[in-house]
Amino acid sequence: GPAFPQHLPIGVFDSGVGGLTVLREIRRVLPGESTLYLGDTARVPYGTKSQATIIRYSRQNTRILSERGIKLLVVACNTASALAMEALRHDFDFPMTGVIEPGAEAAAKTSRTKKIGVIGTSATVRSAAYTAALQARNAQLQVISKACPLFVSLAEEGWTEGEVAEPAARKYLESFQGSGIDVLLLGCTHYPLLRSVISKVMGEGISIIDSAKATAEQVSKLLAARKLAAPAGSPPKHRYLVTDSRERFLDLAPRFLGGSLEGDVEEVGVPGDD
Amino acid sequence: GPAFPQHLPIGVFDSGVGGLTVLREIRRVLPGESTLYLGDTARVPYGTKSQATIIRYSRQNTRILSERGIKLLVVACNTASALAMEALRHDFDFPMTGVIEPGAEAAAKTSRTKKIGVIGTSATVRSAAYTAALQARNAQLQVISKACPLFVSLAEEGWTEGEVAEPAARKYLESFQGSGIDVLLLGCTHYPLLRSVISKVMGEGISIIDSAKATAEQVSKLLAARKLAAPAGSPPKHRYLVTDSRERFLDLAPRFLGGSLEGDVEEVGVPGDD
Repeated sequence: GPAFPQHLPIGVFDSGVGGLTVLREIRRVLPGESTLYLGDTARVPYGTKSQATIIRYSRQNTRILSERGIKLLVVACNTASALAMEALRHDFDFPMTGVIEPGAEAAAKTSRTKKIGVIGTSATVRSAAYTAALQARNAQLQVISKACPLFVSLAEEGWTEGEVAEPAARKYLESFQGSGIDVLLLGCTHYPLLRSVISKVMGEGISIIDSAKATAEQVSKLLAARKLAAPAGSPPKHRYLVTDSRERFLDLAPRFLGGSLEGDVEEVGVPGDD
Repeated sequence: GPAFPQHLPIGVFDSGVGGLTVLREIRRVLPGESTLYLGDTARVPYGTKSQATIIRYSRQNTRILSERGIKLLVVACNTASALAMEALRHDFDFPMTGVIEPGAEAAAKTSRTKKIGVIGTSATVRSAAYTAALQARNAQLQVISKACPLFVSLAEEGWTEGEVAEPAARKYLESFQGSGIDVLLLGCTHYPLLRSVISKVMGEGISIIDSAKATAEQVSKLLAARKLAAPAGSPPKHRYLVTDSRERFLDLAPRFLGGSLEGDVEEVGVPGDD
Protein backbone atom coordinates (compact mmCIF):
# COMPACT_ATOMS: atom_id res chain seq x y z
CA GLY A 1 0.00 0.00 0.00
CA PRO A 2 1.02 3.65 -0.21
CA ALA A 3 3.36 5.06 2.43
CA PHE A 4 0.83 7.69 3.52
CA PRO A 5 -2.90 7.02 3.96
CA GLN A 6 -4.90 8.29 0.99
CA HIS A 7 -7.55 9.85 3.20
CA LEU A 8 -5.10 12.35 4.70
CA PRO A 9 -5.20 15.95 3.50
CA ILE A 10 -2.75 17.69 1.21
CA GLY A 11 -0.69 20.02 3.42
CA VAL A 12 0.10 23.52 2.20
CA PHE A 13 2.11 26.23 3.93
CA ASP A 14 2.90 29.82 3.16
CA SER A 15 4.19 32.81 5.10
CA GLY A 16 0.70 34.32 5.01
CA VAL A 17 -2.36 34.49 2.77
CA GLY A 18 -0.68 34.43 -0.66
CA GLY A 19 -0.51 30.63 -0.74
CA LEU A 20 -4.29 30.55 -0.79
CA THR A 21 -4.11 31.25 -4.53
CA VAL A 22 -2.22 27.95 -4.80
CA LEU A 23 -4.74 26.21 -2.54
CA ARG A 24 -7.52 27.56 -4.74
CA GLU A 25 -6.03 25.92 -7.85
CA ILE A 26 -5.40 22.65 -5.97
CA ARG A 27 -9.06 22.56 -4.91
CA ARG A 28 -10.16 23.38 -8.47
CA VAL A 29 -8.00 20.67 -10.06
CA LEU A 30 -8.57 18.10 -7.28
CA PRO A 31 -12.08 18.74 -5.88
CA GLY A 32 -12.16 15.41 -4.03
CA GLU A 33 -9.04 16.10 -1.94
CA SER A 34 -9.00 17.36 1.66
CA THR A 35 -6.56 20.15 2.49
CA LEU A 36 -4.76 21.53 5.55
CA TYR A 37 -3.35 25.05 5.12
CA LEU A 38 -0.86 26.74 7.45
CA GLY A 39 -0.32 30.51 7.14
CA ASP A 40 2.67 31.66 9.21
CA THR A 41 1.02 35.05 9.67
CA ALA A 42 3.04 35.88 12.81
CA ARG A 43 6.33 35.85 10.91
CA VAL A 44 5.32 37.15 7.49
CA PRO A 45 7.14 38.32 5.35
CA TYR A 46 9.84 35.72 4.71
CA GLY A 47 11.47 37.64 1.85
CA THR A 48 13.60 39.83 4.10
CA LYS A 49 14.96 36.99 6.26
CA SER A 50 18.17 34.94 5.95
CA GLN A 51 18.31 31.45 4.40
CA ALA A 52 19.03 29.85 7.79
CA THR A 53 15.91 31.48 9.22
CA ILE A 54 13.76 30.49 6.23
CA ILE A 55 14.90 26.86 6.60
CA ARG A 56 14.16 26.88 10.33
CA TYR A 57 10.69 28.38 9.84
CA SER A 58 9.91 25.99 6.97
CA ARG A 59 10.91 22.96 9.09
CA GLN A 60 8.74 24.18 11.97
CA ASN A 61 5.76 24.75 9.69
CA THR A 62 6.18 21.35 8.06
CA ARG A 63 6.43 19.66 11.45
CA ILE A 64 3.10 21.18 12.51
CA LEU A 65 1.43 19.90 9.33
CA SER A 66 3.15 16.53 9.71
CA GLU A 67 1.91 16.11 13.29
CA ARG A 68 -1.65 16.76 12.15
CA GLY A 69 -1.17 14.21 9.36
CA ILE A 70 -0.68 15.01 5.68
CA LYS A 71 0.09 12.82 2.68
CA LEU A 72 1.82 15.43 0.50
CA LEU A 73 3.36 18.86 1.10
CA VAL A 74 3.04 21.98 -1.03
CA VAL A 75 5.40 24.83 -0.17
CA ALA A 76 3.22 27.62 -1.49
CA CYS A 77 5.70 30.39 -0.75
CA ASN A 78 8.25 31.56 -3.30
CA THR A 79 10.93 32.39 -0.74
CA ALA A 80 10.68 29.03 1.05
CA SER A 81 10.48 27.25 -2.33
CA ALA A 82 13.71 28.95 -3.38
CA LEU A 83 15.64 28.38 -0.17
CA ALA A 84 14.26 25.47 1.88
CA MET A 85 13.11 22.62 -0.41
CA GLU A 86 16.34 20.64 -0.13
CA ALA A 87 16.29 20.82 3.67
CA LEU A 88 12.63 19.76 3.80
CA ARG A 89 13.22 16.83 1.41
CA HIS A 90 16.05 15.70 3.65
CA ASP A 91 13.96 15.83 6.83
CA PHE A 92 10.52 14.66 5.74
CA ASP A 93 9.37 11.60 3.80
CA PHE A 94 6.14 12.65 2.14
CA PRO A 95 6.16 13.74 -1.50
CA MET A 96 6.43 17.49 -1.86
CA THR A 97 6.61 20.32 -4.33
CA GLY A 98 7.39 24.01 -4.22
CA VAL A 99 5.98 26.62 -6.61
CA ILE A 100 9.11 27.59 -8.52
CA GLU A 101 9.88 24.38 -10.44
CA PRO A 102 6.28 23.89 -11.69
CA GLY A 103 6.02 27.57 -12.70
CA ALA A 104 9.36 27.48 -14.50
CA GLU A 105 8.47 24.25 -16.29
CA ALA A 106 5.17 25.65 -17.56
CA ALA A 107 6.82 28.89 -18.70
CA ALA A 108 9.70 27.12 -20.46
CA LYS A 109 7.26 24.85 -22.33
CA THR A 110 5.08 27.74 -23.45
CA SER A 111 7.67 30.18 -24.78
CA ARG A 112 8.39 30.16 -28.52
CA THR A 113 10.64 33.25 -28.61
CA LYS A 114 12.70 31.75 -25.75
CA LYS A 115 12.48 35.10 -23.98
CA ILE A 116 10.58 34.99 -20.70
CA GLY A 117 9.61 37.74 -18.29
CA VAL A 118 9.40 37.01 -14.55
CA ILE A 119 7.76 39.30 -12.02
CA GLY A 120 7.85 38.82 -8.24
CA THR A 121 8.76 40.43 -4.94
CA SER A 122 12.17 42.10 -4.55
CA ALA A 123 13.39 39.08 -2.56
CA THR A 124 12.32 36.58 -5.23
CA VAL A 125 13.85 38.62 -8.04
CA ARG A 126 17.05 39.12 -6.06
CA SER A 127 17.28 35.37 -5.39
CA ALA A 128 17.20 34.69 -9.17
CA ALA A 129 15.55 31.35 -8.35
CA TYR A 130 13.22 31.47 -11.37
CA THR A 131 16.09 32.44 -13.68
CA ALA A 132 18.09 29.45 -12.42
CA ALA A 133 15.11 27.07 -12.72
CA LEU A 134 14.34 28.29 -16.26
CA GLN A 135 17.91 28.16 -17.51
CA ALA A 136 18.41 24.70 -15.97
CA ARG A 137 15.68 23.56 -18.40
CA ASN A 138 17.10 25.42 -21.35
CA ALA A 139 20.37 27.29 -21.11
CA GLN A 140 19.39 29.36 -24.17
CA LEU A 141 16.39 30.94 -22.44
CA GLN A 142 16.65 34.67 -21.90
CA VAL A 143 15.04 35.75 -18.65
CA ILE A 144 14.10 39.33 -17.83
CA SER A 145 13.05 39.86 -14.21
CA LYS A 146 11.28 42.78 -12.63
CA ALA A 147 10.31 43.29 -8.99
CA CYS A 148 6.79 44.69 -8.53
CA PRO A 149 6.53 45.14 -4.75
CA LEU A 150 3.38 47.29 -4.83
CA PHE A 151 1.39 44.41 -6.35
CA VAL A 152 1.28 42.63 -2.96
CA SER A 153 -0.32 45.64 -1.24
CA LEU A 154 -2.72 46.16 -4.15
CA ALA A 155 -3.83 42.52 -3.92
CA GLU A 156 -4.25 42.70 -0.13
CA GLU A 157 -6.13 46.01 -0.41
CA GLY A 158 -8.43 44.51 -3.04
CA TRP A 159 -7.47 47.20 -5.57
CA THR A 160 -6.98 44.67 -8.35
CA GLU A 161 -8.13 46.84 -11.23
CA GLY A 162 -8.97 50.44 -12.01
CA GLU A 163 -7.49 53.84 -11.32
CA VAL A 164 -4.56 52.75 -9.08
CA ALA A 165 -3.81 49.18 -10.21
CA GLU A 166 -3.68 50.02 -13.91
CA PRO A 167 -1.13 52.88 -13.78
CA ALA A 168 0.93 50.83 -11.30
CA ALA A 169 0.93 47.87 -13.72
CA ARG A 170 1.88 50.17 -16.63
CA LYS A 171 4.75 51.66 -14.63
CA TYR A 172 6.16 48.26 -13.65
CA LEU A 173 5.58 46.43 -16.91
CA GLU A 174 6.70 49.08 -19.40
CA SER A 175 10.24 47.68 -19.15
CA PHE A 176 8.99 44.58 -21.02
CA GLN A 177 7.86 46.63 -24.04
CA GLY A 178 9.94 45.70 -27.06
CA SER A 179 11.85 43.04 -25.10
CA GLY A 180 10.60 40.18 -27.28
CA ILE A 181 9.19 38.12 -24.41
CA ASP A 182 6.14 36.00 -25.23
CA VAL A 183 5.58 34.62 -21.69
CA LEU A 184 5.22 36.51 -18.42
CA LEU A 185 5.58 34.31 -15.34
CA LEU A 186 3.74 35.46 -12.20
CA GLY A 187 6.40 34.58 -9.64
CA CYS A 188 4.51 35.68 -6.54
CA THR A 189 1.48 33.98 -5.04
CA HIS A 190 -0.31 37.33 -4.66
CA TYR A 191 -0.14 38.22 -8.34
CA PRO A 192 -2.91 35.97 -9.74
CA LEU A 193 -5.36 38.46 -8.19
CA LEU A 194 -3.97 41.08 -10.59
CA ARG A 195 -3.95 38.77 -13.58
CA SER A 196 -6.57 40.67 -15.52
CA VAL A 197 -4.93 44.10 -15.22
CA ILE A 198 -1.49 42.58 -15.96
CA SER A 199 -2.91 40.86 -19.02
CA LYS A 200 -4.59 44.09 -20.18
CA VAL A 201 -1.35 46.07 -19.87
CA MET A 202 0.82 43.38 -21.53
CA GLY A 203 -1.61 43.08 -24.43
CA GLU A 204 -2.28 40.28 -26.92
CA GLY A 205 0.37 37.71 -27.73
CA ILE A 206 1.87 37.46 -24.25
CA SER A 207 0.95 34.32 -22.29
CA ILE A 208 0.53 34.92 -18.59
CA ILE A 209 1.77 31.86 -16.65
CA ASP A 210 0.72 31.39 -13.09
CA SER A 211 2.83 29.24 -10.73
CA ALA A 212 -0.32 28.44 -8.73
CA LYS A 213 -2.00 26.61 -11.63
CA ALA A 214 1.22 24.82 -12.60
CA THR A 215 1.77 23.72 -9.00
CA ALA A 216 -1.76 22.27 -8.78
CA GLU A 217 -1.04 20.22 -11.92
CA GLN A 218 2.17 18.97 -10.33
CA VAL A 219 0.26 17.95 -7.18
CA SER A 220 -2.18 16.02 -9.34
CA LYS A 221 0.68 14.20 -11.07
CA LEU A 222 2.41 13.36 -7.76
CA LEU A 223 -0.80 11.95 -6.25
CA ALA A 224 -1.34 9.74 -9.29
CA ALA A 225 2.27 8.55 -9.43
CA ARG A 226 2.33 7.68 -5.72
CA LYS A 227 -1.20 6.22 -5.71
CA LEU A 228 -2.20 8.74 -3.06
CA ALA A 229 -5.45 10.08 -4.54
CA ALA A 230 -8.32 10.29 -2.05
CA PRO A 231 -10.81 7.39 -2.18
CA ALA A 232 -13.88 8.32 -4.22
CA GLY A 233 -17.05 9.13 -2.31
CA SER A 234 -15.58 10.63 0.88
CA PRO A 235 -16.43 14.36 1.03
CA PRO A 236 -13.33 16.57 1.29
CA LYS A 237 -12.58 18.56 4.45
CA HIS A 238 -10.68 21.84 4.58
CA ARG A 239 -8.89 23.28 7.60
CA TYR A 240 -6.70 26.32 8.20
CA LEU A 241 -4.02 27.05 10.79
CA VAL A 242 -2.56 30.51 11.46
CA THR A 243 0.31 31.47 13.76
CA ASP A 244 -1.12 34.88 14.70
CA SER A 245 -4.57 36.38 15.05
CA ARG A 246 -7.36 34.88 12.92
CA GLU A 247 -8.93 38.29 12.27
CA ARG A 248 -6.82 39.56 9.39
CA PHE A 249 -6.70 36.09 7.85
CA LEU A 250 -10.50 35.80 7.89
CA ASP A 251 -10.62 39.25 6.32
CA LEU A 252 -8.26 38.57 3.44
CA ALA A 253 -8.69 34.85 2.80
CA PRO A 254 -11.91 34.82 0.73
CA ARG A 255 -10.40 37.19 -1.83
CA PHE A 256 -7.28 35.02 -2.29
CA LEU A 257 -9.27 31.80 -2.26
CA GLY A 258 -11.88 33.19 -4.63
CA GLY A 259 -14.70 32.07 -2.34
CA SER A 260 -15.52 31.06 1.20
CA LEU A 261 -13.09 29.06 3.35
CA GLU A 262 -15.42 26.09 3.83
CA GLY A 263 -13.55 25.09 6.96
CA ASP A 264 -12.39 26.22 10.40
CA VAL A 265 -9.46 28.53 11.12
CA GLU A 266 -7.40 27.68 14.21
CA GLU A 267 -4.76 29.90 15.83
CA VAL A 268 -1.79 27.69 16.71
CA GLY A 269 0.72 30.26 18.05
CA VAL A 270 4.24 30.91 16.81
CA PRO A 271 5.99 27.59 16.06
CA GLY A 272 9.15 26.70 17.97
CA ASP A 273 11.86 24.09 17.43
CA ASP A 274 10.03 20.85 18.38
CA GLY B 1 24.76 66.90 37.36
CA PRO B 2 22.35 65.25 34.93
CA ALA B 3 21.64 61.52 35.33
CA PHE B 4 22.89 60.74 31.83
CA PRO B 5 26.01 62.27 30.28
CA GLN B 6 25.14 65.07 27.86
CA HIS B 7 27.59 63.83 25.24
CA LEU B 8 25.65 60.58 24.74
CA PRO B 9 23.50 60.24 21.64
CA ILE B 10 19.72 60.34 21.45
CA GLY B 11 18.54 56.74 20.91
CA VAL B 12 15.79 56.05 18.40
CA PHE B 13 14.23 52.71 17.48
CA ASP B 14 11.66 51.63 14.94
CA SER B 15 10.61 48.33 13.40
CA GLY B 16 12.32 49.36 10.14
CA VAL B 17 13.07 52.45 8.09
CA GLY B 18 9.96 54.53 8.83
CA GLY B 19 11.43 55.95 12.03
CA LEU B 20 14.07 57.68 9.92
CA THR B 21 11.49 60.40 9.16
CA VAL B 22 11.46 61.06 12.92
CA LEU B 23 15.25 60.98 13.08
CA ARG B 24 15.32 63.46 10.21
CA GLU B 25 13.21 65.97 12.15
CA ILE B 26 15.28 65.43 15.33
CA ARG B 27 18.45 66.20 13.37
CA ARG B 28 16.82 69.26 11.80
CA VAL B 29 15.59 70.65 15.14
CA LEU B 30 18.70 69.62 17.10
CA PRO B 31 21.64 69.77 14.68
CA GLY B 32 24.19 69.59 17.49
CA GLU B 33 22.96 66.26 18.90
CA SER B 34 24.45 62.84 18.16
CA THR B 35 22.02 60.01 17.36
CA LEU B 36 21.96 56.21 17.51
CA TYR B 37 19.20 54.61 15.42
CA LEU B 38 18.08 50.95 15.64
CA GLY B 39 15.91 49.53 12.84
CA ASP B 40 14.54 46.08 13.79
CA THR B 41 14.48 45.14 10.12
CA ALA B 42 14.52 41.38 10.84
CA ARG B 43 11.16 41.50 12.60
CA VAL B 44 9.34 44.23 10.68
CA PRO B 45 6.31 44.73 10.61
CA TYR B 46 5.22 45.07 14.24
CA GLY B 47 1.60 45.94 13.39
CA THR B 48 0.46 42.34 12.99
CA LYS B 49 2.00 41.08 16.26
CA SER B 50 0.48 40.72 19.74
CA GLN B 51 1.02 43.27 22.54
CA ALA B 52 3.15 40.81 24.53
CA THR B 53 5.43 40.37 21.52
CA ILE B 54 5.65 44.13 20.88
CA ILE B 55 6.63 44.73 24.51
CA ARG B 56 9.28 41.99 24.37
CA TYR B 57 10.76 43.34 21.13
CA SER B 58 10.68 46.93 22.40
CA ARG B 59 12.52 45.95 25.60
CA GLN B 60 15.15 44.06 23.60
CA ASN B 61 15.65 47.01 21.24
CA THR B 62 15.90 49.46 24.12
CA ARG B 63 18.40 47.24 25.90
CA ILE B 64 20.66 47.26 22.84
CA LEU B 65 20.54 51.05 22.68
CA SER B 66 21.03 51.31 26.44
CA GLU B 67 24.14 49.09 26.35
CA ARG B 68 25.68 51.32 23.69
CA GLY B 69 24.83 54.36 25.82
CA ILE B 70 22.03 56.84 25.16
CA LYS B 71 20.71 59.78 27.17
CA LEU B 72 17.12 59.80 25.86
CA LEU B 73 14.93 57.31 23.99
CA VAL B 74 12.56 57.99 21.10
CA VAL B 75 10.18 55.15 20.20
CA ALA B 76 9.73 56.12 16.56
CA CYS B 77 7.24 53.36 15.78
CA ASN B 78 3.51 53.88 16.10
CA THR B 79 2.75 50.31 17.15
CA ALA B 80 5.41 50.26 19.88
CA SER B 81 4.37 53.78 20.97
CA ALA B 82 0.79 52.57 21.34
CA LEU B 83 1.55 49.33 23.17
CA ALA B 84 4.95 49.38 24.91
CA MET B 85 5.65 52.84 26.40
CA GLU B 86 4.44 51.96 29.90
CA ALA B 87 6.58 48.82 30.00
CA LEU B 88 9.65 50.73 28.80
CA ARG B 89 9.12 53.55 31.32
CA HIS B 90 8.96 50.92 34.05
CA ASP B 91 12.17 49.19 33.00
CA PHE B 92 14.44 52.04 31.90
CA ASP B 93 15.45 55.29 33.58
CA PHE B 94 16.27 57.66 30.74
CA PRO B 95 13.68 60.19 29.58
CA MET B 96 11.67 58.90 26.64
CA THR B 97 8.89 59.75 24.23
CA GLY B 98 6.81 57.90 21.68
CA VAL B 99 5.31 59.46 18.56
CA ILE B 100 1.61 59.29 19.43
CA GLU B 101 1.36 61.76 22.34
CA PRO B 102 3.35 64.52 20.57
CA GLY B 103 1.35 64.05 17.35
CA ALA B 104 -1.96 64.09 19.19
CA GLU B 105 -0.97 67.19 21.17
CA ALA B 106 -0.03 69.13 18.04
CA ALA B 107 -3.23 68.09 16.25
CA ALA B 108 -5.47 68.95 19.22
CA LYS B 109 -3.87 72.41 19.51
CA THR B 110 -4.23 73.14 15.82
CA SER B 111 -7.86 72.17 15.22
CA ARG B 112 -10.50 74.92 15.34
CA THR B 113 -13.45 72.81 14.12
CA LYS B 114 -12.59 70.15 16.74
CA LYS B 115 -12.86 67.53 14.03
CA ILE B 116 -9.60 65.72 13.28
CA GLY B 117 -8.76 63.13 10.67
CA VAL B 118 -6.15 60.46 11.44
CA ILE B 119 -4.53 58.22 8.84
CA GLY B 120 -2.22 55.30 9.59
CA THR B 121 -1.64 51.61 9.04
CA SER B 122 -4.49 49.15 9.67
CA ALA B 123 -2.90 48.16 12.99
CA THR B 124 -2.60 51.76 14.20
CA VAL B 125 -6.17 52.61 13.20
CA ARG B 126 -7.47 49.39 14.78
CA SER B 127 -5.62 50.19 18.03
CA ALA B 128 -7.44 53.56 18.23
CA ALA B 129 -4.37 54.89 20.07
CA TYR B 130 -4.55 58.33 18.40
CA THR B 131 -8.28 58.60 19.08
CA ALA B 132 -7.66 57.86 22.77
CA ALA B 133 -4.73 60.32 22.97
CA LEU B 134 -6.76 63.06 21.25
CA GLN B 135 -9.89 62.57 23.31
CA ALA B 136 -7.86 62.42 26.53
CA ARG B 137 -6.85 66.02 25.71
CA ASN B 138 -10.36 67.12 24.78
CA ALA B 139 -13.30 64.76 25.13
CA GLN B 140 -15.27 66.89 22.65
CA LEU B 141 -12.88 66.17 19.78
CA GLN B 142 -14.38 64.19 16.93
CA VAL B 143 -11.86 61.83 15.38
CA ILE B 144 -12.30 60.19 12.00
CA SER B 145 -9.71 57.50 11.23
CA LYS B 146 -8.83 55.85 7.97
CA ALA B 147 -6.29 53.11 7.29
CA CYS B 148 -4.19 53.74 4.15
CA PRO B 149 -2.03 50.60 3.94
CA LEU B 150 -0.83 51.21 0.39
CA PHE B 151 0.94 54.42 1.45
CA VAL B 152 3.72 52.38 3.11
CA SER B 153 4.51 50.54 -0.12
CA LEU B 154 4.29 53.74 -2.15
CA ALA B 155 6.77 55.43 0.20
CA GLU B 156 9.17 52.46 0.10
CA GLU B 157 8.89 52.24 -3.70
CA GLY B 158 9.61 55.96 -3.99
CA TRP B 159 6.34 56.57 -5.84
CA THR B 160 5.48 59.58 -3.71
CA GLU B 161 3.67 61.59 -6.38
CA GLY B 162 2.25 61.20 -9.85
CA GLU B 163 0.15 58.70 -11.72
CA VAL B 164 -0.12 56.03 -8.98
CA ALA B 165 0.26 57.99 -5.72
CA GLU B 166 -2.33 60.62 -6.63
CA PRO B 167 -5.27 58.31 -7.48
CA ALA B 168 -4.38 56.19 -4.43
CA ALA B 169 -4.49 59.30 -2.21
CA ARG B 170 -7.81 60.36 -3.76
CA LYS B 171 -9.29 56.93 -3.17
CA TYR B 172 -8.24 56.81 0.49
CA LEU B 173 -8.93 60.42 1.38
CA GLU B 174 -12.28 60.93 -0.33
CA SER B 175 -13.99 59.73 2.87
CA PHE B 176 -12.85 63.00 4.53
CA GLN B 177 -14.68 65.15 1.97
CA GLY B 178 -17.46 67.07 3.69
CA SER B 179 -16.50 65.66 7.09
CA GLY B 180 -15.66 69.09 8.54
CA ILE B 181 -12.13 68.15 9.65
CA ASP B 182 -9.56 70.95 9.56
CA VAL B 183 -6.58 68.85 10.65
CA LEU B 184 -5.26 65.63 9.15
CA LEU B 185 -2.78 63.80 11.38
CA LEU B 186 -0.19 61.61 9.63
CA GLY B 187 -0.18 58.69 12.07
CA CYS B 188 2.44 56.58 10.35
CA THR B 189 6.15 57.33 10.11
CA HIS B 190 6.15 56.51 6.38
CA TYR B 191 3.54 59.09 5.47
CA PRO B 192 5.63 62.30 5.61
CA LEU B 193 7.13 61.14 2.29
CA LEU B 194 3.65 61.48 0.75
CA ARG B 195 2.92 64.79 2.42
CA SER B 196 2.79 66.80 -0.79
CA VAL B 197 0.35 64.50 -2.61
CA ILE B 198 -1.81 64.20 0.54
CA SER B 199 -1.85 67.97 0.88
CA LYS B 200 -2.75 68.40 -2.80
CA VAL B 201 -5.67 65.98 -2.53
CA MET B 202 -6.97 67.42 0.77
CA GLY B 203 -6.82 70.96 -0.61
CA GLU B 204 -6.57 74.36 1.09
CA GLY B 205 -7.76 74.85 4.63
CA ILE B 206 -6.68 71.46 5.98
CA SER B 207 -3.56 71.46 8.17
CA ILE B 208 -1.40 68.40 7.74
CA ILE B 209 0.18 67.47 11.08
CA ASP B 210 3.15 65.20 11.15
CA SER B 211 3.99 63.17 14.30
CA ALA B 212 7.66 63.25 13.30
CA LYS B 213 7.95 67.02 13.61
CA ALA B 214 5.92 67.10 16.83
CA THR B 215 8.11 64.35 18.32
CA ALA B 216 11.29 66.27 17.49
CA GLU B 217 9.88 69.31 19.34
CA GLN B 218 9.11 67.09 22.33
CA VAL B 219 12.70 65.75 22.32
CA SER B 220 13.98 69.32 22.30
CA LYS B 221 11.77 70.17 25.32
CA LEU B 222 12.85 67.05 27.24
CA LEU B 223 16.55 67.76 26.67
CA ALA B 224 16.13 71.33 27.92
CA ALA B 225 14.05 70.30 30.96
CA ARG B 226 16.54 67.60 32.00
CA LYS B 227 19.61 69.70 31.15
CA LEU B 228 20.75 67.01 28.73
CA ALA B 229 21.57 69.11 25.66
CA ALA B 230 24.90 68.27 24.03
CA PRO B 231 27.79 70.56 24.97
CA ALA B 232 28.36 73.21 22.29
CA GLY B 233 31.29 72.73 19.98
CA SER B 234 31.48 68.92 19.84
CA PRO B 235 30.55 67.75 16.32
CA PRO B 236 27.57 65.33 16.32
CA LYS B 237 28.01 61.66 15.35
CA HIS B 238 25.35 59.47 13.78
CA ARG B 239 25.24 55.68 13.87
CA TYR B 240 22.75 53.06 12.70
CA LEU B 241 22.08 49.50 13.83
CA VAL B 242 19.95 46.99 11.90
CA THR B 243 18.88 43.49 12.94
CA ASP B 244 18.92 42.04 9.40
CA SER B 245 20.89 42.69 6.24
CA ARG B 246 22.23 46.22 5.70
CA GLU B 247 21.49 46.12 1.97
CA ARG B 248 17.80 47.04 1.92
CA PHE B 249 18.34 49.59 4.71
CA LEU B 250 21.11 51.31 2.75
CA ASP B 251 18.79 51.32 -0.26
CA LEU B 252 15.79 52.90 1.44
CA ALA B 253 17.34 55.04 4.18
CA PRO B 254 18.38 58.13 2.20
CA ARG B 255 14.82 58.64 0.93
CA PHE B 256 13.35 58.50 4.46
CA LEU B 257 16.13 60.57 5.94
CA GLY B 258 16.00 63.11 3.12
CA GLY B 259 19.73 62.90 2.60
CA SER B 260 22.79 60.79 3.23
CA LEU B 261 23.20 58.74 6.42
CA GLU B 262 26.39 60.51 7.53
CA GLY B 263 27.30 57.52 9.67
CA ASP B 264 28.00 53.80 9.69
CA VAL B 265 25.39 51.04 9.54
CA GLU B 266 26.12 47.95 11.65
CA GLU B 267 24.26 44.63 11.48
CA VAL B 268 23.68 43.46 15.07
CA GLY B 269 21.60 40.29 14.51
CA VAL B 270 18.16 39.51 15.90
CA PRO B 271 17.94 40.64 19.55
CA GLY B 272 17.26 38.06 22.25
CA ASP B 273 16.17 38.32 25.89
CA ASP B 274 19.28 39.66 27.71
